Amino acid sequence: MVTLENYTRRIAKLDEASMVEARRIQDALTKPKGSLGKLETLSVQLAGIYRTPSPTMGRKVVFTMAADHGVTAEGVSAYPSEVTAQMVLNFARGGAAINVLARHAGAEVKVVDIGVASDMRWPECVLDRKIMKGSRNMAVGPAMSREEATEAVLAGAELATESIAAGTSALAIGDMGIGNTTAASAITSVITGTPVRDVTGRGTGIDDKTLDAKVRVIEKAIFHNRPDRADGLDVLSKVGGLEIAGLVGVILGGAARGVPVFLDGFVSGSAALVAAVICPESKGYMIASHLSVEPGHRYVMEHLGFVPLLDMGMRLGEGTGAVLAFQIAEAACKIINEMATFENANVSRSIKEVRK
Amino acid sequence: MVTLENYTRRIAKLDEASMVEARRIQDALTKPKGSLGKLETLSVQLAGIYRTPSPTMGRKVVFTMAADHGVTAEGVSAYPSEVTAQMVLNFARGGAAINVLARHAGAEVKVVDIGVASDMRWPECVLDRKIMKGSRNMAVGPAMSREEATEAVLAGAELATESIAAGTSALAIGDMGIGNTTAASAITSVITGTPVRDVTGRGTGIDDKTLDAKVRVIEKAIFHNRPDRADGLDVLSKVGGLEIAGLVGVILGGAARGVPVFLDGFVSGSAALVAAVICPESKGYMIASHLSVEPGHRYVMEHLGFVPLLDMGMRLGEGTGAVLAFQIAEAACKIINEMATFENANVSRSIKEVRK
Repeated sequence: MVTLENYTRRIAKLDEASMVEARRIQDALTKPKGSLGKLETLSVQLAGIYRTPSPTMGRKVVFTMAADHGVTAEGVSAYPSEVTAQMVLNFARGGAAINVLARHAGAEVKVVDIGVASDMRWPECVLDRKIMKGSRNMAVGPAMSREEATEAVLAGAELATESIAAGTSALAIGDMGIGNTTAASAITSVITGTPVRDVTGRGTGIDDKTLDAKVRVIEKAIFHNRPDRADGLDVLSKVGGLEIAGLVGVILGGAARGVPVFLDGFVSGSAALVAAVICPESKGYMIASHLSVEPGHRYVMEHLGFVPLLDMGMRLGEGTGAVLAFQIAEAACKIINEMATFENANVSRSIKEVRK
Repeated sequence: MVTLENYTRRIAKLDEASMVEARRIQDALTKPKGSLGKLETLSVQLAGIYRTPSPTMGRKVVFTMAADHGVTAEGVSAYPSEVTAQMVLNFARGGAAINVLARHAGAEVKVVDIGVASDMRWPECVLDRKIMKGSRNMAVGPAMSREEATEAVLAGAELATESIAAGTSALAIGDMGIGNTTAASAITSVITGTPVRDVTGRGTGIDDKTLDAKVRVIEKAIFHNRPDRADGLDVLSKVGGLEIAGLVGVILGGAARGVPVFLDGFVSGSAALVAAVICPESKGYMIASHLSVEPGHRYVMEHLGFVPLLDMGMRLGEGTGAVLAFQIAEAACKIINEMATFENANVSRSIKEVRK
C-alpha cells in the first residue's frame, strides 16, 4: 500500500554544489553583484531544486483543487456553497481568472474535484478524485477523519507524480472552495501559534459582523477539536479541508520528484504549513509566489521564513498568484543561462581593475 | 522648429468613459470584487490610456539610453566611466540583463547613445543621438546648458514618436550611465524637497566613505547651481544627465501619442519627476513598474503618488524592472478581455441572490 512515507522519504536536501555554482555565475554576470535581487536568489534556489547550475523551468502545470466545507453552515462566507461547483464548471470552460493567467504564463490548468458537495457530472477535463462530498462542520467535530485526510493527501501526491512522469517540471497549486479561508485561518492559528483574530480576514468579502462570527467559529473549532500542532495530519483532518489536503499532497509529491511547487495565497499557504510539519525538507521546494491581502498570509510566510516574490494586492486563490510567478521564475532562469559575463563581454569590474 | 510644446500640448487627459466601463467590466467578472488587486487598477489605467475598455498592449519597445557624467570626476561611483561604453557594446551584442529580460517579455530593445564619452563606432543597431560626449561636472557648474538639455529631451521625444509611428504601442524606459544615480539623487532632492542624504544610495555598490563623498558632491552641486524646482528643464540641465533628459523626452513623446510608458527604477524615476513638472498630465501615461532598492526611489514614487507594481529588490536600471512589468500589464489586459462574467458563466454573485 502506498503511504505518505513513500513520498516523504524521497524528499532530498537541495543540491548545495549546484547552488554554490549558480551563485558564482550570478556574480560573474555583467551587472553589479546582487542588483537583480529576488531574481538572483530565486535562480539559486531553482539550481538547488533542479540540481544544476543552469536551471530551466520546462512544462508547467497548476493544480486547482476544489472542495466544499461543512463549516459554511455557520454562515462564514459571502458566497453560497453552490459557487464551488459553479466555479468548477467555469474552470472547465476556461472562463476563470486562473484559466486566463495560466494561458498567459504558458501553463496548463488541471482542475480537480477532491470534495465538491455536488453530484454534477463534470466535463471530461475535470479530474474526479472526490474523497467525499465536502468536509464536515469543524465547529461541531472534526472536518475529516484522519483516514479521509490522508486519502486526500495521497490523491494529490499521486496526481503530482503522474503529471511529472508525463513531463511536467514545474508545479503550482491553487484552491477553490467556498468557506476555505475559515479552514486556512484555523490551520494557520494552530501551526503558527497566532491568535485566531489576527489570522482571520474577509475572504471573498464578508462584513464586520460576519467576520466576528467567523472568528468565533474558528475559535470554537480549535477549542473542541484540540488539534496537535506537531502532527500535520491531525491539524489537517480536524480543522482543514479536502482541497487543502490535496494541495499538501501536490507539494509532497512534487518535492519527492525534485520539482518546484509554486504556492499561491493564503489557502495554499496553509497547505504549505501542513506539508512543512509533515516533512520540513519539503520547504526547499516551495516558491512563495505572492503575498495575499488576507491578513493570515503574512503569518504563514513569516513562519515558513519566506519572502514572497510579488505583492499584487491579490486575494483570489485558484493559483492566480502562483502562475504569475511562473514568468518571473523563467526570467530568473534565463538571466543565469543567457547573460554575458564581465570576462566574455570585456566589461571592467571596478575602478580598481581599470587603475591597475 | 519643433519645440517641447509640440509634444506637451498633445498630451490629453485619460479617457474617463473607458475607465468607468473597464471598472464596470472588472466588477462583473467571476471573482470577488477587487480580488485581483493591482491587476484590476492597472487594467483600468490602460483603458484610460488606450481610450478603450478592452485594452491590449501590442508591440513593446524599451529605450535604453546611455550617457556619461562629468561628475564621476568626483569619485562617486564604484565603476569607471569606461563601463558606459563597454555596456553599450554588451547591449548591442544582446548579453546584458535588459536583452535577456526584454526577449523574455517579447519586447524590442532600442539602445541609444545620447551622450557617451567615447568616439567608438557602434554596431548599426545602436541609435546615435549623441548630444555631447558626456555631461559636465555638476559639482563645479551646470551639467548641461538649457539648450543641450532641451535638445536631448527632443531627441527622446522624436525617437518615441518615430517608434509609435512604426507600430509600437507600449514603451519602457531604461538607463545606462556610470554616475547617473548621483544625478538622479540631485533631481529627486530638488523636486521632492527631500534632504540629499535621504535620497542618496550606493548605486552600483559604493562603500560608506564614498557614499558620504557622494552626498557632499550632490549638496555642493545643488548649492552652486540653484536649480528652480518649478522649472523642469532648469533642474534637468543643472543637475541632471543626458540619458535622463532623453528619457524625459520618451515619456513626453509617448504620452503625446497616447501610449503608456513603463518606468524602471530610480534613474528613470528622476526622469518621470522632471516630465511631471514640465507637463503634469503626462503622469497618467506612466506605469510604475517596480520599486528600486535605491533609497531615493521611494520618495520619487510618493511624490508622484504611485504604488509600484513589483518589489523585486532590484537596482540594475537598463529598463530591467520595466520590461518585467510588461508581462504583468499584459496579464491585466487579458483578465478584462478573456474572463467570463457572473452572468454568462452562471455563477451566483452572493448568498442573497441564491436565497431570493
